[in-house]
Amino acid sequence: MKISCRRDQLQYAVQTVQKAVASKTPLPILTGIYINASNGRLELQATDYEIGISCIIDATVDEPGTTVLSGRYFQEMVRKLPGEIVEISSSKEDRTIKITSNNAQFNLLSFPAEEFPVLKPINSENVLKIQDTILKELIKKTIFACANDEARPIFTGGLLEVDNENISMVATNTHRLALKREHLPSTGVNIKMIIPAKILHELARILASDEQREVGLSWQKNQVGISFDNVYINSRLIEGQFPDYNKVIPETYSTKIKINTEQFLDAVERVSLLAREGEYNVVKFSFTKDTVVISSNNPDIGKAFETVPAENSGNDVEIAFNAKYVIDILKNIMSGELIFSLNTSLSPANIKPADDENYIYIITPVRTS
Amino acid sequence: MKISCRRDQLQYAVQTVQKAVASKTPLPILTGIYINASNGRLELQATDYEIGISCIIDATVDEPGTTVLSGRYFQEMVRKLPGEIVEISSSKEDRTIKITSNNAQFNLLSFPAEEFPVLKPINSENVLKIQDTILKELIKKTIFACANDEARPIFTGGLLEVDNENISMVATNTHRLALKREHLPSTGVNIKMIIPAKILHELARILASDEQREVGLSWQKNQVGISFDNVYINSRLIEGQFPDYNKVIPETYSTKIKINTEQFLDAVERVSLLAREGEYNVVKFSFTKDTVVISSNNPDIGKAFETVPAENSGNDVEIAFNAKYVIDILKNIMSGELIFSLNTSLSPANIKPADDENYIYIITPVRTS
Repeated sequence: MKISCRRDQLQYAVQTVQKAVASKTPLPILTGIYINASNGRLELQATDYEIGISCIIDATVDEPGTTVLSGRYFQEMVRKLPGEIVEISSSKEDRTIKITSNNAQFNLLSFPAEEFPVLKPINSENVLKIQDTILKELIKKTIFACANDEARPIFTGGLLEVDNENISMVATNTHRLALKREHLPSTGVNIKMIIPAKILHELARILASDEQREVGLSWQKNQVGISFDNVYINSRLIEGQFPDYNKVIPETYSTKIKINTEQFLDAVERVSLLAREGEYNVVKFSFTKDTVVISSNNPDIGKAFETVPAENSGNDVEIAFNAKYVIDILKNIMSGELIFSLNTSLSPANIKPADDENYIYIITPVRTS
Repeated sequence: MKISCRRDQLQYAVQTVQKAVASKTPLPILTGIYINASNGRLELQATDYEIGISCIIDATVDEPGTTVLSGRYFQEMVRKLPGEIVEISSSKEDRTIKITSNNAQFNLLSFPAEEFPVLKPINSENVLKIQDTILKELIKKTIFACANDEARPIFTGGLLEVDNENISMVATNTHRLALKREHLPSTGVNIKMIIPAKILHELARILASDEQREVGLSWQKNQVGISFDNVYINSRLIEGQFPDYNKVIPETYSTKIKINTEQFLDAVERVSLLAREGEYNVVKFSFTKDTVVISSNNPDIGKAFETVPAENSGNDVEIAFNAKYVIDILKNIMSGELIFSLNTSLSPANIKPADDENYIYIITPVRTS
């Protein structure tokens, strides 16, 4: 192998595949980054068998070849290389890979490339193309509601649901549920799949740049492939039946309250300072006609209260929630005003942006004595 | 107690004393911040018996009083309070302290103020006044060389030495030594004291703002008091005899090499990437007439080399160091060029800024096979 490429492009490729490099694994080869050079292109790959990522960049290929280098060292090295151009070549004498840039030279030991489980892109007729902005929005507005607890795997992923012209993502840990819908041009596609939250986080990270692009999704059995630009991501899907979340969403609410999002968030964060240590991080909300009084009480530390103006078109209600579940949605609402919809102090409530009917967040109250 | 003060000033005072609040202690009172209001001023104090810090701010005092509040909660609360003005008052009914700002109210449980070990400022004729810029420079350029190992307490502090017109600070972990000297107007003072590195770090942090000010040092027995603006810091001194560091500094060098600091730092950082895992983090330096070749070799990972231009007025030398010890000084040199002075590959070397005779860094080489 003998190639040269731009350092910034190589760094972009290494960063893109980096999160699929396994850190704790009995298989050393999975701690490596696979590098394949041919036909004017350099492909990097990494996989931990849960997620696999490939990224292709331009390169001047004098001699094609394949190798696997330590993901950790290759990444740190590329980040620190001094020049604009990086040359990579293999030496037959000592099985090392020589990497040079300006006056710096690294001779890294390589793994045997034939041991690397090269990604097999999904070859399927099940294909959906969507704008990355739509996909990022679906992920960002829901995925924080997933469970971290591996004991119930189904809740550690986001349910992606496509029904011809509608796409939605749903995430829940059974105490709160986030649902975001978007409209699509007619797709003819009808599919439900549960994608692990970890992969959705990575996808949102890799898609973070501002340039707009189309993302291709393809699926078969328990796998999904995601492709855009020069990147391909392969992920397992979570198997099992996602519960019927529509049953959890109340059909009507007896009380709807409009509140300034920022004021409310600041106040809940302040009041919750004293609640965090408690078992359920409980903050109380007392809604009256014009205000909501937010309060917490921790017998070991003290009490906190704060009053925020609110427009209540229904009944007075007292209700308590896990403060974290309320703060999470307030940070994601991205709208100046929110609607807090309630029935009784023991039934699920809904918090949504005042100006978006396609974002729903259901939260179960905490029973207080 | 009933007072009001500006929130930004209260936050400044809390942040200033915060680092003296004990986190792990069998004495709960030391996890608190002592608050004393009288005569138009509010004093905050914290101490962990190693360091004590006091900070005084202006306040409107309607009723003087004293209390102690949880350091952790008071700090977080003050940081998040919504208004410009904070009111603090005690309630006789329930032993809580009421803190209000705009619509937010906290009732914090208090500790019994009479249990707090109030700071006793040093009342001594031993006083030295110096500019904070000088003190900060002495600390910043030496303290990183201290030992972390509590087994040899004497090396966990910086030796501050004043000899009428000269002030210096020295820090060493026995493998490397940093010495910085400054000139003072005649002081008539002659003193040596070893101040714990932890306290010097805190002092540098609190002095970080750009405004220039005079710092007063006073000492007696095993204690030093440091005062500036509205802040007073009390610290224990480390007892024992600091070794005669002048013996460690070579009188002459057979080889002196001038190198561009930034180029050298970048190269050493790159080459050391492969050395870090090794027991001694060893990087080799091969000095010839016009260049220095920096190299490392890790049998499990690979090799790295880099060549940097250098002006060598003496012999060719090969020498190896712990890379961290070299990088630490290169990051603190703050000068475009450095002088690397050597004798043999087994004798201590000196790295210093090309333009500063009052900064010395002695580093012991590593023997390589």
